[in-house]
Amino acid sequence: MKIRVLGAAAGGGFPQWNCNHPNSRRARSRDPRAVPRTQSSISVSSDGVRWFLFNASPDLRQQINDSEVLHPTQGLRHSPIQGVVLTNADVDHVTGLLTLRESQAFNLYATTRVLAVLGANSIFNVLNPDFVQRLPIKLEESFELLGPEGYASGLMVKPFSVPGKVALWLEDATKGPNFGSVEEDTIALEVSWRNSRQRIFYIPGCAEMTATLAARIRGADLVFFDGTLWVDDEMIRDGVGVKTGKRMGHMSVSGPDGTMAALGSLGIRRKIFIHINTTNPILLDDSAERKSVNDAGWEVAFDGMQIALP
Amino acid sequence: MKIRVLGAAAGGGFPQWNCNHPNSRRARSRDPRAVPRTQSSISVSSDGVRWFLFNASPDLRQQINDSEVLHPTQGLRHSPIQGVVLTNADVDHVTGLLTLRESQAFNLYATTRVLAVLGANSIFNVLNPDFVQRLPIKLEESFELLGPEGYASGLMVKPFSVPGKVALWLEDATKGPNFGSVEEDTIALEVSWRNSRQRIFYIPGCAEMTATLAARIRGADLVFFDGTLWVDDEMIRDGVGVKTGKRMGHMSVSGPDGTMAALGSLGIRRKIFIHINTTNPILLDDSAERKSVNDAGWEVAFDGMQIALP
Repeated sequence: MKIRVLGAAAGGGFPQWNCNHPNSRRARSRDPRAVPRTQSSISVSSDGVRWFLFNASPDLRQQINDSEVLHPTQGLRHSPIQGVVLTNADVDHVTGLLTLRESQAFNLYATTRVLAVLGANSIFNVLNPDFVQRLPIKLEESFELLGPEGYASGLMVKPFSVPGKVALWLEDATKGPNFGSVEEDTIALEVSWRNSRQRIFYIPGCAEMTATLAARIRGADLVFFDGTLWVDDEMIRDGVGVKTGKRMGHMSVSGPDGTMAALGSLGIRRKIFIHINTTNPILLDDSAERKSVNDAGWEVAFDGMQIALP
Repeated sequence: MKIRVLGAAAGGGFPQWNCNHPNSRRARSRDPRAVPRTQSSISVSSDGVRWFLFNASPDLRQQINDSEVLHPTQGLRHSPIQGVVLTNADVDHVTGLLTLRESQAFNLYATTRVLAVLGANSIFNVLNPDFVQRLPIKLEESFELLGPEGYASGLMVKPFSVPGKVALWLEDATKGPNFGSVEEDTIALEVSWRNSRQRIFYIPGCAEMTATLAARIRGADLVFFDGTLWVDDEMIRDGVGVKTGKRMGHMSVSGPDGTMAALGSLGIRRKIFIHINTTNPILLDDSAERKSVNDAGWEVAFDGMQIALP
């Protein structure tokens, strides 16, 4: 199984367009220790030729341009992209679908809840239904990633619910403290390959570590995990926002309830932070926080990161 | 008045993600004579500090990153972008609005028809109405480009209808050969500045030259004009599509009914092609077609092109 990180940053990217925080300024100044990152998405492949995207970021056109494996190679119109799996309806996870237009066939996998959101927004009609099949996926039901013309990848995906929050633009303040969120609003993906025993997880958004989730990912070969914020009040403390991580549906990297503490003893072979906000100091190669996550056995994802599993 | 071209290509960009046409291949191979271009948009400013975007392309985040004048400079959250004017609801003209989130104030100008389309697509609710005012503009009525905090640019914009077609994703095949298009669906913009006598036009999509349009742009100081296709059947002839330019709402650059012929005798000081499709040979610095448009007094826009008018 091959994985290529297309984008490692949270919504807005690194740097975020309107952010003048010191991190964003360093990224913008081409500081080699503050490497820019586009918005989060990974691509997976069993053969290194045909690929599936997990989420479609607003930066997808740039990500494709920067990833030679995703360039067309046959005829006059072609793409190695066989499908897209969505983990929620966040703007930073669905906007890239608008790049995948031009009557190119692929399969689009999402929960019925997320498909309903796309259905209610006619702009997604640019995905010509003659070419793009919208396939509902169900929590806890494994499915094989298939291409539009019968290609069977051998990659099995099991979607499961994680603690989270409905996308910001779908919040309904009249529906109480969780803004009308339901189980299907935030999912994570477990991926396995028929030809190996490897189990990997893609969890770009998670509000809380539960005993169920810990049990599920224990002993995994690889986990990509929500690295949005270093501390819960980071955006407030830094003066760039009014929301805590919890309010946005993200647990933090540090602290006693943080991700490092929660995943430290689960025997996971490789742990990688992804979906990292422009304010998070782990984005900086020379920060104490980066050293701290590295010392705890974590990696920080970057655009173009390549992983090959046996 | 200052103008910066943010993107010069038509929808899909150059290269387009799934296009393996020789043009796209050359752009992808970093051929110095086939310079990549993002999707069409320009920014205008009277003071060189505060800017207004004409259309918001899907590549807007990349375009901002590549344009130092659009970087934040004050406080922790800031943008020199004061407003956006939309010429239609095409995916390549509105998707960038989803990049301008994060509670940043700006003014959004569009016809009531286009605003209704945005209103019907809840994903655009990421533009927090506490910060982003949606301001209806009317055909033939000049308005001044204003910033959200009372900044008056002195730039006057007059929107007017041009022959065109409703956005692809809004086409209604039951409504006859024009797919339900109305006058407000495709507009162009005339811009003048209080402090000068310069008149410029932004016309990224136009299906046909009419006597009215010719009279309007006659003697202009600068015209950006629809350069989508070289010939009407270019995409069919090249095997990358089934639609003519006319079907897509674009007149062609060459030929007796083409743009070069139509604008040749109108006494326009500076003529620049923009919104250029990945198949159009004028994108190639070494093509006979490029030489031909240059010989006819035309320029071909490129990303980062800067223009200063007295």
